[in-house]
Amino acid sequence: MNTINVALVQQSMQADTRANLEVSLAQVQMAARRGADLVVLCELHTSLYFCQEKSARHFRLAEQIPGPLTRQLSLAARKNRVVIVGSVFEKRARRMYHNTAVVVERDGSLAGIYRKMHIPDGPGYHEQYYFVAGDTGFVPIQTSIGKLGVMVCWDQWFPEAARLMAIGGAEVLIFPTAIGWDPEDDDEEKQRQMQAWQIIQQSHSISNNLPVICTNRTGHEKDLSGTTRGIDFWGHSFVTDAFGKITTQGPADVAETLHARVDLSETKRCRQVWPYLQDRRIDAYGNISKRSVDAPRDPMPAPALPDRESRKKRR
Amino acid sequence: MNTINVALVQQSMQADTRANLEVSLAQVQMAARRGADLVVLCELHTSLYFCQEKSARHFRLAEQIPGPLTRQLSLAARKNRVVIVGSVFEKRARRMYHNTAVVVERDGSLAGIYRKMHIPDGPGYHEQYYFVAGDTGFVPIQTSIGKLGVMVCWDQWFPEAARLMAIGGAEVLIFPTAIGWDPEDDDEEKQRQMQAWQIIQQSHSISNNLPVICTNRTGHEKDLSGTTRGIDFWGHSFVTDAFGKITTQGPADVAETLHARVDLSETKRCRQVWPYLQDRRIDAYGNISKRSVDAPRDPMPAPALPDRESRKKRR
Repeated sequence: MNTINVALVQQSMQADTRANLEVSLAQVQMAARRGADLVVLCELHTSLYFCQEKSARHFRLAEQIPGPLTRQLSLAARKNRVVIVGSVFEKRARRMYHNTAVVVERDGSLAGIYRKMHIPDGPGYHEQYYFVAGDTGFVPIQTSIGKLGVMVCWDQWFPEAARLMAIGGAEVLIFPTAIGWDPEDDDEEKQRQMQAWQIIQQSHSISNNLPVICTNRTGHEKDLSGTTRGIDFWGHSFVTDAFGKITTQGPADVAETLHARVDLSETKRCRQVWPYLQDRRIDAYGNISKRSVDAPRDPMPAPALPDRESRKKRR
Repeated sequence: MNTINVALVQQSMQADTRANLEVSLAQVQMAARRGADLVVLCELHTSLYFCQEKSARHFRLAEQIPGPLTRQLSLAARKNRVVIVGSVFEKRARRMYHNTAVVVERDGSLAGIYRKMHIPDGPGYHEQYYFVAGDTGFVPIQTSIGKLGVMVCWDQWFPEAARLMAIGGAEVLIFPTAIGWDPEDDDEEKQRQMQAWQIIQQSHSISNNLPVICTNRTGHEKDLSGTTRGIDFWGHSFVTDAFGKITTQGPADVAETLHARVDLSETKRCRQVWPYLQDRRIDAYGNISKRSVDAPRDPMPAPALPDRESRKKRR
């Protein structure tokens, strides 16, 4: 199969996690009836984006894989004969949690998981409090419809991640996401951020000749700690072709399931004209694994010795 | 100094190399009078883009560094008190040539060179015939106005290159370029290519929080071998701020020197909000230095033996 029918569930969340899951599952069913082969849900699609605050009470939302949520996704995948990319607040062990994407095969089996590798930590996005950085590495997940390069949200800003998925054989890059505007920013700053977010993901498509699928939540969510004015999740879920062109895009503020056809065979044609993978200078990339390659600084000079002993000696 | 005045010389070349150099030097002088601190010339700005064909006669264009061209650039830099990024078809030794960027300090000294690391090779761009891949690595060049991450053209498609410059301390990324349209492509394809070219460079700005400066030649140049319909160099030299926004942009088909102010202090503010360099997973990037990390294939099964001997044995 070269072309896959993809559905992106751009969802608006509420406090009731069961209600959120019901919406996700209903959208999976509707998307399958419209012919979807693959349904991509948002990051943490069963809950509000609780990482706006640091509160231990949110850990009760976490569960193991497999667990109740994975089972529900599995049943939905089998019933509707679709591959699903879902998102689980994973309890791996006592006080060891991950932000994990699960890929469920159309027969209901678990095709694989990806644990978010890059974890943000800043005002509005206190994820390092909840999630330990993933240890799956950037390994695409084989499914009946192709090899899926599934990552999560903040990963989308790191070209290394997309590249590793590509040279690992990914046929498409997929980013379940939760990102939005600070209501205090002006419109120019808001547009600037959203455009940068699309451009960085388009660039992964261009530099790897792969289509990109990105789902984002929508709607305003309060900061329950009262520290900020909350987040206006900016929607704009989108799909690119294999050379970075956005072919389908959602609105900012409406919950909506988008449908797109993604042609996986474009990659082959694209790589013939733009053979980056052939021209990579792998002999010269070693320092990518360093934090910094600044020139070494001079060692700190020894302080002058103003004490009597040293003055005596000089005489 | 936090803000630098940059001039981008978007030039149209002719067969007469001396005339091309005179234009470059005149533009340097005019730009300096208009207050430029840094002048960025195009890739191979003294000649037509000879790589459209493979012909040994073009090797006579090459010269050593330092050599006549570097000296002319050096004199211009000293006379006009500007830093210049120029481009030299470098003869390093007998049949060892590079596509090299030179950075000349405002006092006329050679601040450093960068030898193009990624060399394209395809219809219209037969660079591997002329240039051996560079061995400088991705090391920014220190100048009086900042640490310049100078690369050349095809390098602009490789996020690894930009990242290495960034973690090496570059304060700005600079790409002298020669890229254009195949006249046989339709307008949609032309736009698609040019947009991808801008997006991939905007992405280096975004993912590294650095401004980008890119100069490109303009004008139609024939393919002297008669194989193709030549190249319409697409101009559109441009500058971004430290978050990928294009602030200055040239036209497609007019030779023009663009002026832009580039605020190097934006990087600091940008990195506070988007701390990618802090969140990079350097423990998980090792495979970037591999060509491919595909799962190993099954070894080839032994072929069946239809010869008499083996049939006999089976009886």
